[in-house]
Amino acid sequence: MAHAPTARAEAIERLIHPRSIAIVGASADLSKINGRPLKHLLDKGYAGRILPVNPKYPQIAGLACVPDIASLPEAADLAIVAVPASEVLASLDALGRRGVRAAVVFSSGFGETGADGLALEQALAACAARHGMVLCGPNCLGFVNAFDKVYATFSQYADGPTGPGPIAFVTQSGAFGTAIAALARQRGLGLGYFINTGNQADLDFSELMGSVVGDPRIRVAAGYLEGLEDGPALIRLARRCHQLGKPLVLTKVGRMASGQRAAASHTGALAVADAVFDAVIRQHGVLRARNEEQMLDMLQALSQERRPAGFGLGIATQSGGAGVMMADRAEEVGLDVPELAPATQARLAGVMPAFGSAGNPVDVTGQFVARPELLRESVVALLDDPGIHLGIVWLQLMTAHVDTLVRIFCEIRDRTTKPFFVCWVAAPAAALAQLQAEGIVVFSAGERAVEAAAALARHAAFARAQARRGPLVPRQLALPALRGRVHDGVQPSVPATEWLRAAGVPVASVALARDADQAVALWRAAGAPVALKIESADITHKTEVGGVILNLDDEAAVRAAYDLLWQRARQARPQAVLDGVLVQAMASGDVELVVGAQRDPVFGMVVMVGLGGVLVEVLKDVAFRHAPFDVDEAHAMLRELRLGALLDGVRGRPGVDRGALARLLSDLSHWVAAMQPWLAELDLNPVLVGANGPLAVDCVMVFRHQPAGLPAPDRPRPT
Amino acid sequence: MAHAPTARAEAIERLIHPRSIAIVGASADLSKINGRPLKHLLDKGYAGRILPVNPKYPQIAGLACVPDIASLPEAADLAIVAVPASEVLASLDALGRRGVRAAVVFSSGFGETGADGLALEQALAACAARHGMVLCGPNCLGFVNAFDKVYATFSQYADGPTGPGPIAFVTQSGAFGTAIAALARQRGLGLGYFINTGNQADLDFSELMGSVVGDPRIRVAAGYLEGLEDGPALIRLARRCHQLGKPLVLTKVGRMASGQRAAASHTGALAVADAVFDAVIRQHGVLRARNEEQMLDMLQALSQERRPAGFGLGIATQSGGAGVMMADRAEEVGLDVPELAPATQARLAGVMPAFGSAGNPVDVTGQFVARPELLRESVVALLDDPGIHLGIVWLQLMTAHVDTLVRIFCEIRDRTTKPFFVCWVAAPAAALAQLQAEGIVVFSAGERAVEAAAALARHAAFARAQARRGPLVPRQLALPALRGRVHDGVQPSVPATEWLRAAGVPVASVALARDADQAVALWRAAGAPVALKIESADITHKTEVGGVILNLDDEAAVRAAYDLLWQRARQARPQAVLDGVLVQAMASGDVELVVGAQRDPVFGMVVMVGLGGVLVEVLKDVAFRHAPFDVDEAHAMLRELRLGALLDGVRGRPGVDRGALARLLSDLSHWVAAMQPWLAELDLNPVLVGANGPLAVDCVMVFRHQPAGLPAPDRPRPT
Repeated sequence: MAHAPTARAEAIERLIHPRSIAIVGASADLSKINGRPLKHLLDKGYAGRILPVNPKYPQIAGLACVPDIASLPEAADLAIVAVPASEVLASLDALGRRGVRAAVVFSSGFGETGADGLALEQALAACAARHGMVLCGPNCLGFVNAFDKVYATFSQYADGPTGPGPIAFVTQSGAFGTAIAALARQRGLGLGYFINTGNQADLDFSELMGSVVGDPRIRVAAGYLEGLEDGPALIRLARRCHQLGKPLVLTKVGRMASGQRAAASHTGALAVADAVFDAVIRQHGVLRARNEEQMLDMLQALSQERRPAGFGLGIATQSGGAGVMMADRAEEVGLDVPELAPATQARLAGVMPAFGSAGNPVDVTGQFVARPELLRESVVALLDDPGIHLGIVWLQLMTAHVDTLVRIFCEIRDRTTKPFFVCWVAAPAAALAQLQAEGIVVFSAGERAVEAAAALARHAAFARAQARRGPLVPRQLALPALRGRVHDGVQPSVPATEWLRAAGVPVASVALARDADQAVALWRAAGAPVALKIESADITHKTEVGGVILNLDDEAAVRAAYDLLWQRARQARPQAVLDGVLVQAMASGDVELVVGAQRDPVFGMVVMVGLGGVLVEVLKDVAFRHAPFDVDEAHAMLRELRLGALLDGVRGRPGVDRGALARLLSDLSHWVAAMQPWLAELDLNPVLVGANGPLAVDCVMVFRHQPAGLPAPDRPRPT
Repeated sequence: MAHAPTARAEAIERLIHPRSIAIVGASADLSKINGRPLKHLLDKGYAGRILPVNPKYPQIAGLACVPDIASLPEAADLAIVAVPASEVLASLDALGRRGVRAAVVFSSGFGETGADGLALEQALAACAARHGMVLCGPNCLGFVNAFDKVYATFSQYADGPTGPGPIAFVTQSGAFGTAIAALARQRGLGLGYFINTGNQADLDFSELMGSVVGDPRIRVAAGYLEGLEDGPALIRLARRCHQLGKPLVLTKVGRMASGQRAAASHTGALAVADAVFDAVIRQHGVLRARNEEQMLDMLQALSQERRPAGFGLGIATQSGGAGVMMADRAEEVGLDVPELAPATQARLAGVMPAFGSAGNPVDVTGQFVARPELLRESVVALLDDPGIHLGIVWLQLMTAHVDTLVRIFCEIRDRTTKPFFVCWVAAPAAALAQLQAEGIVVFSAGERAVEAAAALARHAAFARAQARRGPLVPRQLALPALRGRVHDGVQPSVPATEWLRAAGVPVASVALARDADQAVALWRAAGAPVALKIESADITHKTEVGGVILNLDDEAAVRAAYDLLWQRARQARPQAVLDGVLVQAMASGDVELVVGAQRDPVFGMVVMVGLGGVLVEVLKDVAFRHAPFDVDEAHAMLRELRLGALLDGVRGRPGVDRGALARLLSDLSHWVAAMQPWLAELDLNPVLVGANGPLAVDCVMVFRHQPAGLPAPDRPRPT
């Protein structure tokens, strides 16, 4: 952007917390899009000045109305622009000249309509930048700052009560976002901020969320995404949320092939491979919700302030079957449902009726209606167990006992510091209202309560792990001196492998033979069987031209192989410049992996690992991480592989050294991150893992220099 | 059971449709468990005679009350038993002597409390059988027959409106079942029958559901299960539902290891491996819902009468993102979201505003508020597309436009014969009520609407496939004459393989050598390399004793191998009786599978197939079916394998003949079904599949004769 960060931050501050609001194109019909903000501002008691602009009226709703922007009595902190698309650019320019530094543009007819609209949208952004103005939209429903009663929106969400609460919700979709906000209201979840980004001509999701998440009244950040262009900005937002101790929950549509097709036609946003998106945001502590219901479930769990110290879930029910269902789901989503300690079991046996069960889940049975202390004492005993970190109490209906039960749940809350949720199926409305008023989280279905509990546990575990591991410091690597010396394209194998070895990545050493005599000499020097491989910057995949011959261990064979490789390459690629033939000692391993790195268009450098061979293709059993990352994160990557058990040895094969493999991945991640301006693609395939640890036996390294590059803060640049 | 089927059917008919009801232990306090049925019968207008039994009162609520069962003025069609556990047996006996033939026992304190309770429960069942009486319970909430206003229950469900509807709901759990029934009511789904089975001392889930599903007013059967003892009865129920054209939806808890632990402690029901349960019920057309919410979603979709002719889903939304999310989910659950035909696209382009999208999903945008015909015409055009078989229209809020929108949805319904659902997020209550009144199915979340649509499509597809394939007729196989000739345990390989080959299953032929000379002669006769394997009924897994030597192709090697096998077996298993050494020609294949069959304690004979080698252990990539099954079903099994792509060839390997493999599975399934009284276990591992089709190269067959066996109707018995 053209102006200094502080000026931009100040403009954003004016946008979100305006002391005055101009409404350009304000209508006297308060039910219309261009009338609704005025209605809400008046009805809900906005305390600042409201400045309608419209040549048709001298006043609207008792407020003085000026005929044009130039006539505004002051440079309003915020302008709402609700005029036809063709008039928006002129309005922004006039606002800029009048000294306005923040605008929300409702108008549609821009990038979402095609190339012409996109050009017009880019003109808006340029105009705003010229004036040092920040822009929300166009094609957006605007936003609500519920704390200050700022209703710069025509969303239906504002039609109902919008009392402030601990959640900041930012949505790329207007219609879906409005629905989510309305559902949050139904659940008694208060939105401190509701912001629709629209086309993101200037302010995008990450910057808007970043501008409100620091508010101390906000405890949870929630976002709905349809596309993402600036991955590093989202990562910075995730880091900031972590530093603030505030969870960030994201729902992003476009997970599957068909969905991505629809997303592309709908938003035009850059399609990012969903597996990469998913891995990278989880790496940075973001909780992903698969849909709007799961998002709201998570928000309920995260809005309360207690955090579990582990993954042990205690379940108490009045139905054994519901307990089984929840225990099943807990196992699927990574929670434990541990056996209880003997002391807890004894305590429960003293409380429970004979036909209940004192295991976990605890079946309290319906008897607690007659003896409410039975429910209270058994749940408190359960939560007191040292292996239990959070609890869920399941019950249903009980219309005649709402007051008693709410009182019991309050008593339980006061007798424990551990988080616990109520899951009340087919609950009477009074029960929901009373529990919400008491700040007790209540769900309507058992599996959903468990999923939300798992999200809460994952959030707390991420925070603990980060505290233990400390912030990741990118390494100051001695990078190869490349400037002016290398070209884009496939890099020669000898220096490529040397660079990686210097960075600590175990890659088999290779030597280049320029004739058969040299090849023989290198075989003798190896003192072991060798592989020969054709070497050419014009041949990326050597096997495609028959360019690899394995297991050569006598002079005649080495000579013959040298000649054969040369002939095959000449025949298959007559235009290729051949550099010679690589000679490399044969290696073996118990497990074969593939490791790679790619400059992702959204996130920058991403490292991949998978189980090698035919299974990678069939199972797509791979894990991704954003580079750089530490050894703990690399271990987590390996744990994600469905075939990861192969690493531990099956059918008598020895297990491999996971630690060495994790170090390889982490070391590689630091190197590729530092090399990001040069490196486009790196394939280590296969990486053989045996008794002596992993060894990459083939390496394809492709450069595509990008001097401006993607934003890559904190990274050392190669010289 | 002791009495004839017709008498039992008549007793069940009395239970469900009683013309008179005795209440044993009736209380004058109508809020108590033993008072509530009387209250409901009176309040809701049961038309039959009500006969309270209690020595304390001359009358209750204006009805004459007799002091004991013997004094009943008539043999009531149904008796409700609500007395302490210790008095139940005597009450049942007295009822039997008074000529009562059906009872519901509310009382708890039986099998659910341990061994003593179980013994008492078995005494109840024996008493009922002696009197030709059917029994629902004990430890149950009873049942509701909403058509005839029979309230033989104390479930909280009966406290609210219980107007009849097209769903028969049978639940093993009282508390969870009551919650599900209440949720169904909230959604406007009417339950014609609500039945809680309790401990199933006599009538179990399948028999109770079977007794009501034939009612022509019932369109959908729904069940909640915690355990299953009689698999064949459930299969018969599923077949009956299919013949009636009525979907059967089941939720069964206990999917995971921890859940099964909880289930075992809760119900004591026989634990059946969930993967087998899942496969067998799907094979018979049952729809499985993973939890209560998904069950109710499915019931909504299935209660309407339209059936889709295929899997093509058309989606119309006012939010592109919601469309993407639903398209994603559709792909995950097996629906297509096809591109629209050019004619449809042209038609939509004529209707749609410029900034909507004419693809599928169709983004109608919020503009339809201004021009309602836009929504109607675009959805009708979408549904008219030949590739679209069912539709979902997504919208949100629209509080001010409920009447208009409901009218439009009615018009759409009238202009198409294809099923379509409304998904209305954060819907105004009036919208839900009006749509329900119009019989238009409405969901509250997009992914749930898609999942329900998929269930509807699967149900319709099963019916089409069954109609095409016709009923499966178990083959009249020429079974080996076994009676008196075989012993339990591992069967000798030579006859075992011959039996399978006679049944059409391609198993490598083996011959038994009793000395080294015979082994050499058999090698010569084979004219190819052979494998030698030790043969002994006492050695099930030959490789564990080093009992297999492969790839022998000269006389000295065959002799040496013979001796070595003999020595190894002697050493490893000194007590084993050795029969000799098997000689078998070596075989090869491109893919290695494992095929097996097992007598499952719940369902009887089940066939399994998986991709062989180390991956079976790591991935558990196996598929199950209940035997026998046809070739189409075998193809479906193979499609379920995650690694199934290996069958089609990867990296240049040739694909294998899926048809031949499917025939092997189907042929095997017919044989193992016929052999069920003898066969306990069969392993064909590996089955090698190459250019000449599949060949099982190792066979372990274990008999465990079970003359009474499991119920296996329609199956020919071996002689």
